[in-house]
Amino acid sequence: MATDFTEETATDAVIESFHATPEPRLKEVLTSLTQHLHAFVRDVRPTHSEWEQAIEFLTETGQKCDDVRQEFILLSDVLGVSMLVETINERETPGATSATVLGPFHVVDSPPRALGDTIDLIGTGHPCVVTGRVLSQDGSPLPGAVVDVWQGNEKGFYDVQQPGIQPLGNGRGLFTTDERGAFWFRTVVPSYYPIQTDGPVGRMLERTGRHPNRPAHIHFIVGAEGHAPVTTHVFVKDSPYIENDTVFAVKESLIADFVHTDDPDLAREHGVRNPFAHAQVDIVLESVSDMRPA
Amino acid sequence: MATDFTEETATDAVIESFHATPEPRLKEVLTSLTQHLHAFVRDVRPTHSEWEQAIEFLTETGQKCDDVRQEFILLSDVLGVSMLVETINERETPGATSATVLGPFHVVDSPPRALGDTIDLIGTGHPCVVTGRVLSQDGSPLPGAVVDVWQGNEKGFYDVQQPGIQPLGNGRGLFTTDERGAFWFRTVVPSYYPIQTDGPVGRMLERTGRHPNRPAHIHFIVGAEGHAPVTTHVFVKDSPYIENDTVFAVKESLIADFVHTDDPDLAREHGVRNPFAHAQVDIVLESVSDMRPA
Ligand SMILES: [Fe+2]
Ligand SMILES: [Fe+2]
Repeated sequence: MATDFTEETATDAVIESFHATPEPRLKEVLTSLTQHLHAFVRDVRPTHSEWEQAIEFLTETGQKCDDVRQEFILLSDVLGVSMLVETINERETPGATSATVLGPFHVVDSPPRALGDTIDLIGTGHPCVVTGRVLSQDGSPLPGAVVDVWQGNEKGFYDVQQPGIQPLGNGRGLFTTDERGAFWFRTVVPSYYPIQTDGPVGRMLERTGRHPNRPAHIHFIVGAEGHAPVTTHVFVKDSPYIENDTVFAVKESLIADFVHTDDPDLAREHGVRNPFAHAQVDIVLESVSDMRPA
Repeated sequence: MATDFTEETATDAVIESFHATPEPRLKEVLTSLTQHLHAFVRDVRPTHSEWEQAIEFLTETGQKCDDVRQEFILLSDVLGVSMLVETINERETPGATSATVLGPFHVVDSPPRALGDTIDLIGTGHPCVVTGRVLSQDGSPLPGAVVDVWQGNEKGFYDVQQPGIQPLGNGRGLFTTDERGAFWFRTVVPSYYPIQTDGPVGRMLERTGRHPNRPAHIHFIVGAEGHAPVTTHVFVKDSPYIENDTVFAVKESLIADFVHTDDPDLAREHGVRNPFAHAQVDIVLESVSDMRPA
């Protein structure tokens, strides 16, 4: 029916409007979107004023975004959508490192650094050494794998959140594994932190009595030839909010012990102050030949 | 379950996060949103790249908005959500004028004008006289009712779309009915027009093979003391796209005959060139005492 839309005919009328969509996948997505979005509207029966508030919320969310701020990713994160997408796309190769959310702070390129370099350009936090290997699912090491890491500082802020206080690139590094598939770098132990709360998503958390915090973690994207890349975190064991991440991203398998290490010789060898924390992080990638068709 | 989110536990985990929401209505809306949004994601199973495209689409939609552009209303309109909200909120008082979508062009205040004034500040279109009355549902006239009208010009553009070409306020007027509940004004016959296609919503229509057009119409918001205001359109009978409005807003009861009138005396009386079109538009409001509780 082309006119006099009713609650009963509305969804079919909109779906029908997409009948000539050339790309089958786009048609499928928009058909499903229409069904679920209309079901939501019929379920909550918004007033005009509520509809206007929703329009304003979405508009403000878009307008809060800039080169270094992504409020729609935050919204996707706190509604569990990002993690649901991760879960849906999770490969089930036994032993492969699990994925978790990208988060909103992968907004500048990580500077390439040499193995052993520090990603901490400030020096005030608790020293930390991260060592690890990139392996294929059969246990063989992957030399030449690229390890992109980014993290907040010891106060819980990423470089892009504190221009003028942190130099851009602080807490970020792009490393390449050696012939043994190994990587290692120096940093500071990251802190738990609140997601950015000065926008519409923060207001939503406030109005719903939700805390905005994420447990301490380091972000990783790891890729190697012939293998599926993984976007993941390493979480700091026993961090506050480890059981209660506001973006639902914690997996038990991604929690690492940041071991308190009091060993002046080892500290000297790594080039950090004693005592320091040491985290060992192995990343296992699925080889492409075993990948399910997309 | 606070960690290791699965497809099965995800929705409950997110709903649980809203358990402390003080406002019951907000809690209800966010619970329903989570259910329907997650159901959509589980249904279409987006890849990471599709999720990124969705984030970019929403971001761009927000960033396209400014003081005179509302791309999220356009998106709501072309997905039939605006009209579904209208339908849900429709009062069923027999004889009362039906509502339809607000649309994205009610972004500047209509200038107050005297009865009989023209809202056409340019003078190139086909002359048109609109006359009408505002009535209560029992047929009694409503003096002092406020009639806010806005329309595009004869080429299909609203004033805010053509700064420097149309003066702001062209096609807009705020009238007050006289002691008989009557209003009348001069204008030009509006044209069918495409919704704004230079943004993400236009791209979506393009990629789905949908035309972007709306049949010719004049927008009205009419209010009177003791009555529920109505946001509606008067559609031009036989306009192109009257059966196929891209925002699904046409109701048969809102279509008016813009009668071709060749009468030099009447033209002189109204102060328009002969021949002209004449539309008679009665707006019937529901009295508040009969309103259902909100
Ligand atoms: Fe993070
Ligand atoms: Fe319009």
